Amino acid sequence: MSKKIQIGICGYGNLGKGAQKAIAKTRDMELKVIFTRRNPEEIEREAKISACKIEDMTKWKDKLDVIIMCGGSAKDLPIQVPMFAKEFNTVDSFDTHADIPEYFKTVDEKAKEGGKIAIISVGWDPGMFSINRLYGDSILPNGHTYTFWGKGVSQGHSDAIRRINGVKDARQYTIPIEEAVEKVRKGENPNLSTREKHKRECYVVPEEGANLSQIEQEIKTMPKYFADYDTEVHFITEEELKQKHLGMPHGGSVIHIGETGEKGEHKQVIEYKLALDSNPEFTSSILIAYARAAYHLNQKGEKGAKTPFHIPPIALSEKSEEEILKML
Amino acid sequence: MSKKIQIGICGYGNLGKGAQKAIAKTRDMELKVIFTRRNPEEIEREAKISACKIEDMTKWKDKLDVIIMCGGSAKDLPIQVPMFAKEFNTVDSFDTHADIPEYFKTVDEKAKEGGKIAIISVGWDPGMFSINRLYGDSILPNGHTYTFWGKGVSQGHSDAIRRINGVKDARQYTIPIEEAVEKVRKGENPNLSTREKHKRECYVVPEEGANLSQIEQEIKTMPKYFADYDTEVHFITEEELKQKHLGMPHGGSVIHIGETGEKGEHKQVIEYKLALDSNPEFTSSILIAYARAAYHLNQKGEKGAKTPFHIPPIALSEKSEEEILKML
Repeated sequence: MSKKIQIGICGYGNLGKGAQKAIAKTRDMELKVIFTRRNPEEIEREAKISACKIEDMTKWKDKLDVIIMCGGSAKDLPIQVPMFAKEFNTVDSFDTHADIPEYFKTVDEKAKEGGKIAIISVGWDPGMFSINRLYGDSILPNGHTYTFWGKGVSQGHSDAIRRINGVKDARQYTIPIEEAVEKVRKGENPNLSTREKHKRECYVVPEEGANLSQIEQEIKTMPKYFADYDTEVHFITEEELKQKHLGMPHGGSVIHIGETGEKGEHKQVIEYKLALDSNPEFTSSILIAYARAAYHLNQKGEKGAKTPFHIPPIALSEKSEEEILKML
Repeated sequence: MSKKIQIGICGYGNLGKGAQKAIAKTRDMELKVIFTRRNPEEIEREAKISACKIEDMTKWKDKLDVIIMCGGSAKDLPIQVPMFAKEFNTVDSFDTHADIPEYFKTVDEKAKEGGKIAIISVGWDPGMFSINRLYGDSILPNGHTYTFWGKGVSQGHSDAIRRINGVKDARQYTIPIEEAVEKVRKGENPNLSTREKHKRECYVVPEEGANLSQIEQEIKTMPKYFADYDTEVHFITEEELKQKHLGMPHGGSVIHIGETGEKGEHKQVIEYKLALDSNPEFTSSILIAYARAAYHLNQKGEKGAKTPFHIPPIALSEKSEEEILKML
């Protein structure tokens, strides 16, 4: 067995913790260091894993094969990745859709300068869902792609509820509307409004004495977040929230319906579906696989920014080419 | 718009005909010639498309960008692809699982000699299903993959019935057992016997005066093909077969269930599902997308044998990198 791939993790939230657990289960990777904004002493880890301040990352130059960037897309990644892409191979889950082309360009320049690879926008959406939209569109160009999300917890929507006066805590579930999914699966190519595709279910812990009907009203009419959806609001106790709603399930479907045949007489339906008990652990498992690809492709001389679209599936596997050919 | 990719099709069965229809719907490809074992005059085509004997293929050297090899895996591809891989970029749907590693090696040598690319084993299984097994196994290495096929017509099983004495025609459907699929989807990781995964439904047109119970008995006890399955046999008229069973639907699911978390406490389910009205038209649509990849990758200097595992998803698309980044 050759030397293990030396990994760093930058950021120690849900994603970083998931990455740590996932690396421990691989045979070809070794977690060397966790970079954090917190006090490094407070990081739970085995003794052989270092913990450092993010500012000290450059001291690790040439000691790490890939850094898995686990910060947020809003404030961390747009600063950190361009800063470090010249010195390290990186993998990140940047997901601010509108900013991806610009981010790609910035990171591409830095990574090429340093002869490194930066794989951006890794995860399931963007990521595995995007790959499936692309495969669908490439194979059946005469077609439509539909994406449904859920059932799952939306962090952004939960946060939006928490900002309302009188709300102590909240959890929001995005739920695809089964009738719509079925119509799509049957190849009916329906035109679906926002309201017809998903509904929203909110579990809210109110402060003592809060005005419940006002909270409910504020949620249901919140523009962008809830106003365009059928939204249910349930008030629950803090205890019930802890018992039933601390998990982070998610999932969804990408359904591509294409037509083939001279007159488009044959419907062909491709569906890619996820049902996840833990959204962050799944995302970090994907990051790990792409970290492996970043390392191997960079070893072969590839550099610059890449997306999951650019990575051949074979580069993600721990297995040898010989073993993989047998999977065909 | 740059020059269109110049395509040849070799073999004019269901797959070749599907490829012809699919190419007509692309914007970036042009079908130049169909190579056939039949009388070229009999090939239905527009006037601008040539038809030639397979033996004359080498005359087209340097006039074609990619040839889509649409012959059978048993007798055609193992001879034709090694013969032409030095002179042409090729794409094929070789699917004799056990022989793939050897075939890969033979084709690899020839293609490298000529500086060409040969993408082998393109289709949905092997092909898209294999890719999804690999993605699943790479992302969630602590997991199991299940493959279910159907509901769909199996050509091999239909042929096996037709060889029985007293059978005039027959159609066989492979049907996944829904209870098994549901168990897998729920993450129960069941151990499933052959009989528990699929059943077989046969529609048989008997010759006049044939011994029906003997035919039924012969089908149900046929080793490898039917003996290990629950098999239903229905006798029908030739007319009914023509009315209801001339289509070539197929499909199936690849379901990968993995575990994440310190103690594997979180189940993560990935499902890739196909529901196809026309099996050969779907396969040829995939071949077309990989023909595009073969051309572009060869233009960039890549050569030798490849499988769908080796091809980055972005190479399959008609769209520009800029447009594709917006799909993230």
